[in-house]
Amino acid sequence: MRESGNFSFINGAHCSARFLVLFLLNLHFFLPQARPQAAPAQAPAATAAPTISAVTPSEAADKIGHELLARGIPGLAVAVALDGRIVYSRGFGYADLEERVPAWPATKFRIGSISKPLTATALMQLVEAGKVDLDAPIQKYVPSFPDKGAKITPRLVAGHLAGIRHYKGDEFQMQKHYDNVFDGLKIFQDDPLVAPPGTKFSYSSYGFNLLSAVIQSASGENFLAYMQAHVFDAQGLRGTTPDQNRSIIEQRSRFYSREKDQPVENSPYVDNSYKWAGGGFLSTAEDLVRFGSAMMQPGFLRADSLALLFTPQKTVDGKATNYGIGWFIRKSKSGKRVFEHSGGSVGGTSQLILYPDSHVVVALVCNYDGAPSWTAEDVETIGELFEKTPR
Amino acid sequence: MRESGNFSFINGAHCSARFLVLFLLNLHFFLPQARPQAAPAQAPAATAAPTISAVTPSEAADKIGHELLARGIPGLAVAVALDGRIVYSRGFGYADLEERVPAWPATKFRIGSISKPLTATALMQLVEAGKVDLDAPIQKYVPSFPDKGAKITPRLVAGHLAGIRHYKGDEFQMQKHYDNVFDGLKIFQDDPLVAPPGTKFSYSSYGFNLLSAVIQSASGENFLAYMQAHVFDAQGLRGTTPDQNRSIIEQRSRFYSREKDQPVENSPYVDNSYKWAGGGFLSTAEDLVRFGSAMMQPGFLRADSLALLFTPQKTVDGKATNYGIGWFIRKSKSGKRVFEHSGGSVGGTSQLILYPDSHVVVALVCNYDGAPSWTAEDVETIGELFEKTPR
Amino acid sequence: MRESGNFSFINGAHCSARFLVLFLLNLHFFLPQARPQAAPAQAPAATAAPTISAVTPSEAADKIGHELLARGIPGLAVAVALDGRIVYSRGFGYADLEERVPAWPATKFRIGSISKPLTATALMQLVEAGKVDLDAPIQKYVPSFPDKGAKITPRLVAGHLAGIRHYKGDEFQMQKHYDNVFDGLKIFQDDPLVAPPGTKFSYSSYGFNLLSAVIQSASGENFLAYMQAHVFDAQGLRGTTPDQNRSIIEQRSRFYSREKDQPVENSPYVDNSYKWAGGGFLSTAEDLVRFGSAMMQPGFLRADSLALLFTPQKTVDGKATNYGIGWFIRKSKSGKRVFEHSGGSVGGTSQLILYPDSHVVVALVCNYDGAPSWTAEDVETIGELFEKTPR
Amino acid sequence: MRESGNFSFINGAHCSARFLVLFLLNLHFFLPQARPQAAPAQAPAATAAPTISAVTPSEAADKIGHELLARGIPGLAVAVALDGRIVYSRGFGYADLEERVPAWPATKFRIGSISKPLTATALMQLVEAGKVDLDAPIQKYVPSFPDKGAKITPRLVAGHLAGIRHYKGDEFQMQKHYDNVFDGLKIFQDDPLVAPPGTKFSYSSYGFNLLSAVIQSASGENFLAYMQAHVFDAQGLRGTTPDQNRSIIEQRSRFYSREKDQPVENSPYVDNSYKWAGGGFLSTAEDLVRFGSAMMQPGFLRADSLALLFTPQKTVDGKATNYGIGWFIRKSKSGKRVFEHSGGSVGGTSQLILYPDSHVVVALVCNYDGAPSWTAEDVETIGELFEKTPR
Repeated sequence: MRESGNFSFINGAHCSARFLVLFLLNLHFFLPQARPQAAPAQAPAATAAPTISAVTPSEAADKIGHELLARGIPGLAVAVALDGRIVYSRGFGYADLEERVPAWPATKFRIGSISKPLTATALMQLVEAGKVDLDAPIQKYVPSFPDKGAKITPRLVAGHLAGIRHYKGDEFQMQKHYDNVFDGLKIFQDDPLVAPPGTKFSYSSYGFNLLSAVIQSASGENFLAYMQAHVFDAQGLRGTTPDQNRSIIEQRSRFYSREKDQPVENSPYVDNSYKWAGGGFLSTAEDLVRFGSAMMQPGFLRADSLALLFTPQKTVDGKATNYGIGWFIRKSKSGKRVFEHSGGSVGGTSQLILYPDSHVVVALVCNYDGAPSWTAEDVETIGELFEKTPR
Repeated sequence: MRESGNFSFINGAHCSARFLVLFLLNLHFFLPQARPQAAPAQAPAATAAPTISAVTPSEAADKIGHELLARGIPGLAVAVALDGRIVYSRGFGYADLEERVPAWPATKFRIGSISKPLTATALMQLVEAGKVDLDAPIQKYVPSFPDKGAKITPRLVAGHLAGIRHYKGDEFQMQKHYDNVFDGLKIFQDDPLVAPPGTKFSYSSYGFNLLSAVIQSASGENFLAYMQAHVFDAQGLRGTTPDQNRSIIEQRSRFYSREKDQPVENSPYVDNSYKWAGGGFLSTAEDLVRFGSAMMQPGFLRADSLALLFTPQKTVDGKATNYGIGWFIRKSKSGKRVFEHSGGSVGGTSQLILYPDSHVVVALVCNYDGAPSWTAEDVETIGELFEKTPR
Repeated sequence: MRESGNFSFINGAHCSARFLVLFLLNLHFFLPQARPQAAPAQAPAATAAPTISAVTPSEAADKIGHELLARGIPGLAVAVALDGRIVYSRGFGYADLEERVPAWPATKFRIGSISKPLTATALMQLVEAGKVDLDAPIQKYVPSFPDKGAKITPRLVAGHLAGIRHYKGDEFQMQKHYDNVFDGLKIFQDDPLVAPPGTKFSYSSYGFNLLSAVIQSASGENFLAYMQAHVFDAQGLRGTTPDQNRSIIEQRSRFYSREKDQPVENSPYVDNSYKWAGGGFLSTAEDLVRFGSAMMQPGFLRADSLALLFTPQKTVDGKATNYGIGWFIRKSKSGKRVFEHSGGSVGGTSQLILYPDSHVVVALVCNYDGAPSWTAEDVETIGELFEKTPR
Repeated sequence: MRESGNFSFINGAHCSARFLVLFLLNLHFFLPQARPQAAPAQAPAATAAPTISAVTPSEAADKIGHELLARGIPGLAVAVALDGRIVYSRGFGYADLEERVPAWPATKFRIGSISKPLTATALMQLVEAGKVDLDAPIQKYVPSFPDKGAKITPRLVAGHLAGIRHYKGDEFQMQKHYDNVFDGLKIFQDDPLVAPPGTKFSYSSYGFNLLSAVIQSASGENFLAYMQAHVFDAQGLRGTTPDQNRSIIEQRSRFYSREKDQPVENSPYVDNSYKWAGGGFLSTAEDLVRFGSAMMQPGFLRADSLALLFTPQKTVDGKATNYGIGWFIRKSKSGKRVFEHSGGSVGGTSQLILYPDSHVVVALVCNYDGAPSWTAEDVETIGELFEKTPR
C-alpha cells in the first residue's frame, strides 16, 4: 500500500503537491526569459561562486502568479513598485477566454472599490483648493440630499461613518445606465440611515456616490471629467477610466464568474454607472501601483492631506476604525503597517497594498469573482518579496 | 499491489498524480462549453437516468490535449475526421509565445515529413494521367541526375528503396534559400548510394526532393505551383502551403525548441526550401484529416492508385517493408491496421494516422521539437475515441 | 483657382492624391501572399506571355472585402464555395475592437435570420422522418398555441403566410433570458393575426419560434440539442451554435453599432434566447457556404425536400410569394436565379446566397448593424467572381 | 473642364469621393473613445459655448498615426511625454501581420541606433563613478584594440570623431551570433581608420561597439548585464532589452521589409548581437520618452554629464559637429532646438526627439524599413502638438 501513500498528501496537504506538479510542468515553459542571459564579463573576478539556487524576486512572483492562475482565475495582472519605480509587472492567463486574448500588464480590469481611494484623492484636492470643507453639512454641496435629522459631513461619509446604507438585494447586478452621478443618488438617498452619523463604521459604496456628487458640485465639473483630467491624467494613469459599457475601451478585460462546481462563464451583464465613485472604474495593475506610490509622498497631494487619508477615523465614542479617508489602515500578516483597499466587482476582484515603511506598493487585478481565488495574503507575499531586496 | 496496477500502464505512478492534479485545476476552467447545455425537452420520456459519469469523446480528447500541453509543448492542434467529416478539432496553448497568440484549429504548423504523402498524391495524379511511369529510370524525368550504375525508379524512391542518402551533418538546419527544386538536388545527387537500389529500406527525405523534380518535369509546372493548384487547392486544403520564410502567411505558428533543462526558446532559423517535397510544407490539423479522408476512398485518386499508396513495397529479395508510396503501413498499439506518417521539423512535430477499417483519421500538429512531447500512442488514443462511438 | 475648389472641402489638393497612393499601397500591403510565388518551371515552354494584368477572383474578392471594411464595418468574413468546395474564405478587420482581435474565417458572427433556413432544414428532416406533417394544424405539435379561428400549419408558418406578427416596440433588443423555446412563444402567441392565414406574405421571426416548438415537440428533443446534433454537427458546421451569452464560445465576435455621425460603439446588451429559430444562431462564413452547398444537392435532405425549400409558396388566391420554406427565391442583380437569406441582428448583419445554376454559394457575415454597410449586390459581385472561372 | 482634370488620373471622379468618405468614416471608426464623454455637470454655468470644432492634441496625433500607417508601415507606436509624464501613447496597425497581432504601446520594436544614446548613458555613469576617463587612450580599457598610430579616446569615439569605419558590404544583414562584445570588435578593429582621429565626423556604429567593450571592461560587468541593471531597470525601462533571437521576449514585434513595387514581406533573418551598443536594442515608444525625459534634467545623470551629452563636439580644427556624446543636436523644421537620434534596422525604423525648451519628448518606433515611411518632420509635428498646449 505504499504506492497509494504517495498520493495521500495530495488531497490533504494538496496544495504542496499541486504546486510541485505545476512547477515541474509549467515553469520551464511559461516563464519566458526576457532578460539577457548575461555571459560572464571579460576576466571575471575570482570571487565566490554565485549560489545556483538563487531565485530572484521576479521569478518568485512569477511563480505565485502562476499558482493563482491555476486556482481557476481566467486572467490576472500583478505589479509592484519600489520607491515609485515599477520593479515588477506581469499579466497571467487570459483577458478574454472566448478570443484567448492574453492578460497583459496593460489590460484594464474592474477594480471595484479601489475606485474609492481614487475618489478620495479628488476629494482631498478640492479640500486643498478650499472648495470642500470636510466638516460642512453634505447639503452644502448636494442640496437635494434629504436631511437625515443629523449632520452628515464629507469626512464621515469618506470614513463610512455617516450611516448611509450599502447595496441591498440585486443592486450589485444593476443593468440600468445612469448619465449623471446625481441620478444615482436616488437609489438610496431616501432610505433611513443604518446608524446615527459618527456612531458606527458601516461600509457603504453609496456613500462614495454621494462624495462624487460633492466633487461634481464643488468643482463645477462633471464628476467623470474631473476624475479623468485632475486625477487620472494628472497622475499619468493612462489605463484608468470609467467602465462605460458602450464606449470602445482598448485592452479592457472581459469578465468571468463561476457557480460552484460549474465551468467558468461570462459574467452576467451589469452597468456600473450607478457607482462610479465607489466601484465603477477600470484600471491596470501598473496604474494602481503608480497611484499608490504617488500617495506615499507629498507632491500630488500635500503632506497633511496624505496624513488624513491614512489616519484611522474614530467613532464619536473615540473608538478608532481601521479606515481613514478612502483607505483601510491595518497590519499585514507579517506584522507590517499597510494602507490598502480591495475591490469586488461582477467579474473582477482586486487588491492594492501600500507599505509606507518600505516604500513598496503592490497591486493585483483579475477578471473573476468566483472561488477559489487569490487572498490578500498572496498579494502581501508578492509585495514583500520586493522589500529591501536589491533586484 | 493491485492499487499500483491502476497506474502502471500510464508511465509510472507519478504520471497519474500529475494528471489528476491537472484535471482538478484546469478542466473546469479550460474547457469552455461551446455546446448548448441542452435543457430537457418538453415532456421528457420516463427513461432511465443518464449516466452521470458519461464523458464524450470530445471531452476525453480535450483532456488528452491538455495533458500533452502540460508536458511542455507550447502549442498544438488536434483534429479527427470520421467518414470524411470533421468530428473534433481543437487548438491548445500558444501559436506564438512572444505575442501569446493562441493555437487555433486554423494555425499552420510545420508538418515535416507529412509533406511526403502530399507529394505522393501528386506523383500518383501524374501516373493516372500517364505522365509518369513509376518504373522508368529517374533520368527520364530528371536527366541531370547522375547515373548511379543501377536503375533508380520513382517507385523505388517513393518507397525509400532507391538507396538515396538522408540528411547528414547540419543539413537539417540549413539556412540557404533554394529557388527551384532542381537546385536542391545538388545537395545529395553526387553522393554515393547507401545501398544498391531495391535492396534495403533506407529512409530519405532527399529521395522525395528527387520526386519533386520528377513532378515538375513531368507536369511542366513548377513543383510548388503544381502542388498548390492540383493537390492543395483541389482538395480544399486552404491551410496547406510551402513554408516560405519571406512571404506573409496568415496564422503561421512560430517555432520552439528546448535544450535539456533549459527554458523553451525560439527555434534556430532555418530555410526549408531545400526540401519542400520531403519536409517543407505547412498545414493544419484539419487539412491533414481532410487529406487523409480523401485518401481513404476513390475519388481524388483512383482505387488502384490508393492501393499502391498503401501496399508495402518489398525489397528485391521479397521482404516486405512497412512503407508503400509515401505512407507507412503498420498496426496501432491496439492492434488496428493504420496508414500513417509522422513529421519532424525544426520547431515542429506532427502525426497523421488513417484507420481504414473504421474510417477515422486523426492528426496532431505542434510547434515544438523538444522532449518530452506527445507520442504516436497518444495520437492513436485520441483517434480511437471516435471509432464507432456515436457522438 | 477653381480647380482647387473641388478639393477645398477636403483640406487642400494633396489629400485626394494621398488617398490614391494609400489605396495603391494598401492593396499591396494588406493582401498577404500565402500562395507561393511560383518560379517558372525548369525549361519553360515557348508559349505566349501571360497577361500581366490578370487579377484572380480571390484578389478581386480581397479588394471588395477591404472596400467594405473601409465603409466603417469593424469586422467581416466572406466565404465562397464552388461545387461544394470552399474556394475563397477571408476575414477582414476586427472581431473585437477593444482587444483588436482579428476577424478570421473561423470567427463566429450573429447571423440573425439566416437562422431560419437552418431551422427549416430541421423541419424538413422531421417531415422526411414522418414526424411532422406540413399541413397539420400547428396545435398537433404545440397544443398550447391558441386557436386563431383559422388553420395555421407548419407550411404556412415556414412561408410567412400564417399571419403571425413580427417584432414590435423594443422586442428586437430584449434582454430577458428564456430557458425553453415554449416560453418564448408567450411573447406573441396571444396577439391577433396580422392577416388571415394564407392570404398575405407577412415576414415573422416569431413564426420560426413557433416552428422551433414544433421541432422540439415532434422530435422529443430539446430544440437546441436537436439543432446541434442533427443539423449543425451532422453537417460538420463546427462554428454554428446558439448565441448563449453566458457560455464561453470560442472565437465569438463582439458586436458593434453606430448612431448617425457618432463613433462606433459596443452594441447594447441583448439576449437572443427568445428567438433561436428565427434569429439566434452564431455561425461563420465558411459554415454558411458549407450549409448552402449541402442544400444544393440531395444527400443531407432528399431531392423532394429541397424542391420544397426553394419553391415559392403561393397565397390562397394563387399569387406566388418570393419565399419557399425558410428561403427567399429571387434573381440577382445580374439576372441569375438565387436562393438566399439575409440576417439582421443587434451588432450583426449577414447574407447567404446560393446560385443553383453555377453551384456557387457565397456568404458574408459582419459584426455591425450601422450604416453605410455592405449591400446584397456587393455579396453577389463576390459570388459571381467565382462562377465558371477556373481558379 | 480643368477641374475634372484633377481627378482623371485616379480612376474616374467617384474614386476620390470614395476615399474622402473612407477617411471621414475611418476616423470616427478607428479612434476609439477611451475617454468618457463628459456629460455637462449639474447646473452648468452660463458661459460661452465650447468651440465644437476643437481637436485635442491626442486626436490630431491619432490622425497622423493613421496617416503614417496608411503609407504602408505594418505597425508603429508613438509616445509623447511632457514634463516627464506620458501624455500620449498609442499603437497603430500590426506588430505581427501573420497572426494579426496589434501594435500596442507595449510592443517592443528594433530601435537601431537609438541604442547609442542608451549606451552613452552607461558611459557617463562610469565617468561619474570615476571608472572611465573620456580622454584616456581606448586601449586603457580595451587593451586588445590595435594601436592606430594616433590616440583614440572614448570621447572621440562617442562623437563619431575617432575615424572608425561604419558597416560595409552585407554587414548590416549579419546572421552570425556573437556571445561577447569583445568578439564583435574583430569585425572592424583591424581595418584602417577612415580619417585621422579628431579630424572628421564620420558616423560609425562600430565605434559604439568599441564603447561597449570599454563599459564592460571598466565596470567589470558583462555589457548586456550592465545595461539591463544600471540603465534599463534603473530607469524603469521595462520594455527595453537586447534583441536576442533565441530568447522568448514578450510583445516583441515581427519585422517587415518591402522591395520596390512588391508586397510587404517578412524581413530577412539577421542576428544583431554584433552591434548591441550601436544598434541592437529593442524598446517601446513609452520607454524611449521615459528615457528622453530622464535625460532632460539632472537626477539619473548629473547636470555636467547631461551638458556633455548635448554639447556638439568639435573637430581638431575647431569646427562644431552636430553630435555630442550619443546624441545629435540640431533644430526642428519649425526652428526649435532639439536633441535627437534616429535608428534604422532590418525591419525597423525609429526616432526619438527631445525639446529641451518645452520639455516635450516624442518617440516613434515601427517595424518596417521600406519606403515610403514616416519622416522626422512627421515626428516633430506630433511632438509639437503637445508643446505648451493644455490637454
